[in-house]
Amino acid sequence: MLPVIGISLGDPGGIGPEITLKALKQNLADQSYIPVIFGSESIIHHSSLKSLTDHFDFKFSLPDQKSYAGKKNEVYFIDSYPSLNKDYLTCKPDKTNGKAAYSFIQNGIKYAQNNKISALVTAPVCKESFKLSSIPYTGHTTMLTELTKSRKTSMAFYTSNLKTVLVTVHKPLSQVPALLTKENLSTAVENSFLFASLLGIKKPKIAISGLNPHAGENGMFGTEEQTIIVPFIQELAKKNIIVEGPFPPDTIYYKAYHGSFDIIISLYHDQGLIPVKLLAFDSAVNVTLGLPFIRTSPDHGTAFDIACKDKASPESIIAAIDLAINFSANQHKK
Amino acid sequence: MLPVIGISLGDPGGIGPEITLKALKQNLADQSYIPVIFGSESIIHHSSLKSLTDHFDFKFSLPDQKSYAGKKNEVYFIDSYPSLNKDYLTCKPDKTNGKAAYSFIQNGIKYAQNNKISALVTAPVCKESFKLSSIPYTGHTTMLTELTKSRKTSMAFYTSNLKTVLVTVHKPLSQVPALLTKENLSTAVENSFLFASLLGIKKPKIAISGLNPHAGENGMFGTEEQTIIVPFIQELAKKNIIVEGPFPPDTIYYKAYHGSFDIIISLYHDQGLIPVKLLAFDSAVNVTLGLPFIRTSPDHGTAFDIACKDKASPESIIAAIDLAINFSANQHKK
Repeated sequence: MLPVIGISLGDPGGIGPEITLKALKQNLADQSYIPVIFGSESIIHHSSLKSLTDHFDFKFSLPDQKSYAGKKNEVYFIDSYPSLNKDYLTCKPDKTNGKAAYSFIQNGIKYAQNNKISALVTAPVCKESFKLSSIPYTGHTTMLTELTKSRKTSMAFYTSNLKTVLVTVHKPLSQVPALLTKENLSTAVENSFLFASLLGIKKPKIAISGLNPHAGENGMFGTEEQTIIVPFIQELAKKNIIVEGPFPPDTIYYKAYHGSFDIIISLYHDQGLIPVKLLAFDSAVNVTLGLPFIRTSPDHGTAFDIACKDKASPESIIAAIDLAINFSANQHKK
Repeated sequence: MLPVIGISLGDPGGIGPEITLKALKQNLADQSYIPVIFGSESIIHHSSLKSLTDHFDFKFSLPDQKSYAGKKNEVYFIDSYPSLNKDYLTCKPDKTNGKAAYSFIQNGIKYAQNNKISALVTAPVCKESFKLSSIPYTGHTTMLTELTKSRKTSMAFYTSNLKTVLVTVHKPLSQVPALLTKENLSTAVENSFLFASLLGIKKPKIAISGLNPHAGENGMFGTEEQTIIVPFIQELAKKNIIVEGPFPPDTIYYKAYHGSFDIIISLYHDQGLIPVKLLAFDSAVNVTLGLPFIRTSPDHGTAFDIACKDKASPESIIAAIDLAINFSANQHKK
């Protein structure tokens, strides 16, 4: 039985619909999942997407589980915002598109929580569209965390040679030192072990980065390593939870890339994202850990500048779908 | 006339002498510079280096400039700490070695200031050795800055695909926001243009990184971009000094790596060093800009764990010497 992967189309005016359809087209050749799309039917009828939609036979309701995918070209499509006009605005932030994108996600969450899909892959949303429609979120991670009433989620990134879990995300750098609390560090550690388990790694080597240059160089260049991170790691060790570090930030990613560690805990956004983007700009996958279901997404935005021009590469969303498939398989094994 | 490159041997107990001699051996094949070594004669007689020293004819004083390098295997060697015993301690920090390494650098500075060498390449020193001998420095950059009474120096890094100049270096991360003063930013900008000129780039594209995630995202994730960096760049532009940015830290290095910028101004140590180490762990060159002379060095330490075992790779010091040669040529053209 193939995994059933939900995909929310994201902002209708961005590249989300196009890259999703391109990914579905690739799945035609060597089917590895059953797709369930959360979108508006009008998107299928948009002129810019015709050459892609022609490949599929859209089914507008889910069958019972046993009769999934009678034919390879069947795509299940849940119309989650029927009032979107087929001449919807593209290539820029828009109030209606914001509402539509939000409905796609709400529906995706509902289906995931009812176990009708194995995982939810989310195409890019636009924070300006959300703002125009008074939706109080700037991105997926916070939105999914709040809508599912989850308490301990982490943003994480997957590339073939580097996996990282962030302790803090969209916070001013000046606030980062104070946010390195035991609670926040614990969440990142728990989610790192969850990440490893979803990746099928049985005895993961998990390491935490330092905050300061050379990880503080014995306190000469900063003390958070000595006062917070080392005691935290020691306390974990007493419970047989092994996390190595803190290591100098400027070498830990190099070492992970070359195989010394499976997962790196990054203390702040750019500490983790600089190496991720450098190593896998087009294929990095954004993962939310700690939700009641699996969620992955491409690590790029709506790219309005190239929307509707058949220029967008599906590489990152294909990577996100592949990872969701792998996670589903490993979760099933547990 | 070949450039005359000074090389200080660094801590006698580390890999400095070995990698320097290996670099000199490579120079025998296709001579591109005249080497002037600052060390102790006893190092040449150390048993672990015999197979290397056998290749050279050491001359213990400089000739006048016209008679340099009568033969390819001639190496000028300035004994800068004659009291070092040939059975000097290796493979760990040592008081005498600290004093010796310090003398090598002092002599190197003297020769550079008197224009007897075109550039000074420094092999690694050990801060513990310095501490044992009460030398009040932890590394080359501060030492060279103070000993030459320079006022505006910057630490910079060179790799074939990424060049970066740091605004702050060995400072706790929590102190970085307050250190982004107009004065410190100006020094980094001046030295970035100097760097470009030494690299022979006539119209350099210089960009500055933001401090916060997404460069602050219009103030949502931090305000230093709006309050400090943007006004600073605008003020420069009025003087026709063009620096682009501030750009999101997680994409600026990717863009520079792919050719969009010649030099990136990094606001703190790991912002610049994470990408440098990831891209060129073994071949990055550390450059001090703003001294009265050219100074480069390999970007690694004394590596006591592999000292005297003929295991050390000269790749980084060869890159440092090559860069010093290029800098000398471009400085000469000006």
